[in-house]
Amino acid sequence: MLYPRQVVLVTCRGEGWANIVPVAWSIPLSFEPPLVGISLSPKRYSHELIRKAGEFVINIPTLQLLKAVMETGSCSGRDTDKFSRCGLTPAPAKHLKTPIISECVAHIECRLHKEVELGDHTLFVGEVLEAYADPNYFDGECYTEQADLVYQLGGELFVRLGRRVSA
Amino acid sequence: MLYPRQVVLVTCRGEGWANIVPVAWSIPLSFEPPLVGISLSPKRYSHELIRKAGEFVINIPTLQLLKAVMETGSCSGRDTDKFSRCGLTPAPAKHLKTPIISECVAHIECRLHKEVELGDHTLFVGEVLEAYADPNYFDGECYTEQADLVYQLGGELFVRLGRRVSA
Repeated sequence: MLYPRQVVLVTCRGEGWANIVPVAWSIPLSFEPPLVGISLSPKRYSHELIRKAGEFVINIPTLQLLKAVMETGSCSGRDTDKFSRCGLTPAPAKHLKTPIISECVAHIECRLHKEVELGDHTLFVGEVLEAYADPNYFDGECYTEQADLVYQLGGELFVRLGRRVSA
Repeated sequence: MLYPRQVVLVTCRGEGWANIVPVAWSIPLSFEPPLVGISLSPKRYSHELIRKAGEFVINIPTLQLLKAVMETGSCSGRDTDKFSRCGLTPAPAKHLKTPIISECVAHIECRLHKEVELGDHTLFVGEVLEAYADPNYFDGECYTEQADLVYQLGGELFVRLGRRVSA
């Protein structure tokens, strides 16, 4: 009942290639220091990669990338280079060795701050080193109307963001 | 950049009256056991109430309640009965002494499982005792198109959920 939720693509680095995992369980956690969290099952290959590398990037996709987003969730980085399989392009991050996804409209570079085991998932808490976005999609305060972000309602059902409402 | 986010109304019980706090930082954390998290600043009166009572309820509002949602954020439960001030109606929860908000379309009753200090906020992790919703707004799997949920884009700007998209 805490859906629809924004789906983000988390990148992390492995031995051979970097990996991508779609994550619907993300949350801002603190302003000072700036902390964000992503909750991942230990079954995911990215779980061990993030633990080893001590860093990750949150990349924000739009609905134009929905097919690629779905594809990143349907195979494992243990045996697949997801960047190449999903038609996504890695680019260097500013502060980390983990690549960002060029096609995404915003990026949050995180250094692993803490891991918290909570039930069948681990909350990876990252300290935000830098967050930046394409100015066409983010005006410095919030996303512009052009930013057709990916909100999952459940399973393979998504919802488009609609009209704005002022309080 | 992890916005828009759903705004939920968290209820908790105090000495004299129950309190309500609007929360945009919430997250599912585990399937088994079912855990959810809400991140709250220690400045909020609800922070000490949840710690003392060891329980809270997540209530899901719709945009019809936007004025009341904004109002719950503009005063403190230390000196105000927010239910009466915001025109919201308390009703008994099924498992807790904390009241639910009748006007909301879904409710998640939580027993406090863990507190995690993260920067300038505390993540309150709740074990879900029961989650239930008005069937007009939630079909058992996900929210129906009638459910005009509250998504905050930033500050006093919100966004309506729009058309559905199948992957």
